[in-house]
Amino acid sequence: MARASRAERVAELIEPLRVKPGSHVNLDEDFDPGFKGQIRKEHSDELLKVGVSLLAEYQDRLAAQDTYGVLLCLQGLDAGGKDGTIRHVMSGVNPQGVKVSSFKVPSAEELDHDYLWRYAQRLPGRGEIAIFNRSHYEEVLVVRVHSEVLERQKLPDSARTEKIWQRRYRQINDWERYLTENGFMIVKIFLNLSKEEQRMRFLKRIDLPDKNWKFSAADVHERRYWDDYRAAFSEMLSHTSTRWAPWYVVPADRKWFARLCTAAILAHTLMEIDPRYPKVPAEARKKLLAAKEGLEAEAPKGEPADPYAARHRMPKG
Amino acid sequence: MARASRAERVAELIEPLRVKPGSHVNLDEDFDPGFKGQIRKEHSDELLKVGVSLLAEYQDRLAAQDTYGVLLCLQGLDAGGKDGTIRHVMSGVNPQGVKVSSFKVPSAEELDHDYLWRYAQRLPGRGEIAIFNRSHYEEVLVVRVHSEVLERQKLPDSARTEKIWQRRYRQINDWERYLTENGFMIVKIFLNLSKEEQRMRFLKRIDLPDKNWKFSAADVHERRYWDDYRAAFSEMLSHTSTRWAPWYVVPADRKWFARLCTAAILAHTLMEIDPRYPKVPAEARKKLLAAKEGLEAEAPKGEPADPYAARHRMPKG
Repeated sequence: MARASRAERVAELIEPLRVKPGSHVNLDEDFDPGFKGQIRKEHSDELLKVGVSLLAEYQDRLAAQDTYGVLLCLQGLDAGGKDGTIRHVMSGVNPQGVKVSSFKVPSAEELDHDYLWRYAQRLPGRGEIAIFNRSHYEEVLVVRVHSEVLERQKLPDSARTEKIWQRRYRQINDWERYLTENGFMIVKIFLNLSKEEQRMRFLKRIDLPDKNWKFSAADVHERRYWDDYRAAFSEMLSHTSTRWAPWYVVPADRKWFARLCTAAILAHTLMEIDPRYPKVPAEARKKLLAAKEGLEAEAPKGEPADPYAARHRMPKG
Repeated sequence: MARASRAERVAELIEPLRVKPGSHVNLDEDFDPGFKGQIRKEHSDELLKVGVSLLAEYQDRLAAQDTYGVLLCLQGLDAGGKDGTIRHVMSGVNPQGVKVSSFKVPSAEELDHDYLWRYAQRLPGRGEIAIFNRSHYEEVLVVRVHSEVLERQKLPDSARTEKIWQRRYRQINDWERYLTENGFMIVKIFLNLSKEEQRMRFLKRIDLPDKNWKFSAADVHERRYWDDYRAAFSEMLSHTSTRWAPWYVVPADRKWFARLCTAAILAHTLMEIDPRYPKVPAEARKKLLAAKEGLEAEAPKGEPADPYAARHRMPKG
């Protein structure tokens, strides 16, 4: 009963953020970076805490079941809040079952391979949650906006046609379909920041010495491509939000709301998987009980056969 | 002129071995393991030598151009001649540009991932030839014939439907299309051995002590699945011989003919890529000549400015 209403509330929160497969997206018109639904900021800490413990619970079951894996792709422009979102949403979840990969400038070896090669290596295993801090979607974003990056990929002429982006959308969709068909669920989140909020966050990073490391003048330079990026994002969202791996556009001007939404979207995916602790078959259970008897029989004479007492026994001699 | 006729002879040899995309294959009726075309065995050594030097030449150009990569997938039942074919066809080609991967029983980490994961890691880089000794096609062969192998892949129930093989054909075709579209050409060879010839080769491996290491009793056991394997191969060939990555069924009862065909098929692919040594632009060529002058000026006084002489100069002091 409580579970059902929790799932319903999660679904209600994230429904307006989902990009309907096949729909045509214009980021600037269709999604408001300042949106915060019905939620009030003073409740957000409490709600996020509930969300994180929900994630921790489900992650434990996901690992125990060892059948499904989850890939969370986080995309967003600079200062969109990717790092902070990962820190706040995933702290509290057992790090043994979570792997975060950040994709920076590709190595020479990576450039020598097909463009999905480096992402494929960091895919989650069964029972794991993998987080891509920037993902294979950079291949239709930064690579599209900066043609010199595409140049470095050494593609044959036959691949450098004007259809290259349409082709990559199809290739990425095929790849993600293959993964979901084989038990790897993909969660795709775009942190949707306004240009004004980015400006404010940049100024803060310059003003606060502790934030300076997160910042370089190149980030400001990149703002000149703002419109190009927004257009590339809009087209990407239009072509790669699929039945099997839909995109969510998360309003990112309020950090607390972005984190809450991200936790909810991830929780929603885990709830749909609904992983269960494996049941031990009767035969194996019998063996466990026999083993228990053996362990109990090992208790030194004169002491109670209490397995927990052993821990506190003083060493002899 | 000589080049054209060489290319024609290669095309003529391999044409009857190609599986026409979309055709329905029945291995036992459509392909004769003893076929040897118009070629006489006494010419085979000579011809293979020509083929190998052709491969070496093209591989060097492939590496210099650094744009295309080639993946050769070798499939065949035990004693089909995979190892010997690799040894005879690829010896003579610069090993720096060739990577051979054999896929044995998967590790626990590999089983925890999607079934293409371990193959994707061994893909060729640009300028390289990768050889898969057994390949991702095992995922619709041994995994199909031995259901306990599929069991170990920990698939969710939704993936374990009766449509699983059709789905895998489609997933593999999509993957290969993506690779070829991005400059990685795929050569797929099935070494087609008769059951009687396999028997003879097994007997030889038992009789000759030097061959014993290549053999285990399990190989004979596997012969009981001969018909299952032939059926799985026939269906695989019918569904995964594509426009972008066709299958070749190479008659394997005569080792010399199988090797010749393999060299020819690989050479054909390289000829189609037709890699060229990059031309150095006039500007860069000028810099090279300037550098040459600098090197020549370094020559010790009284000695001739012969760059090759330096190698033989005795150390001073």
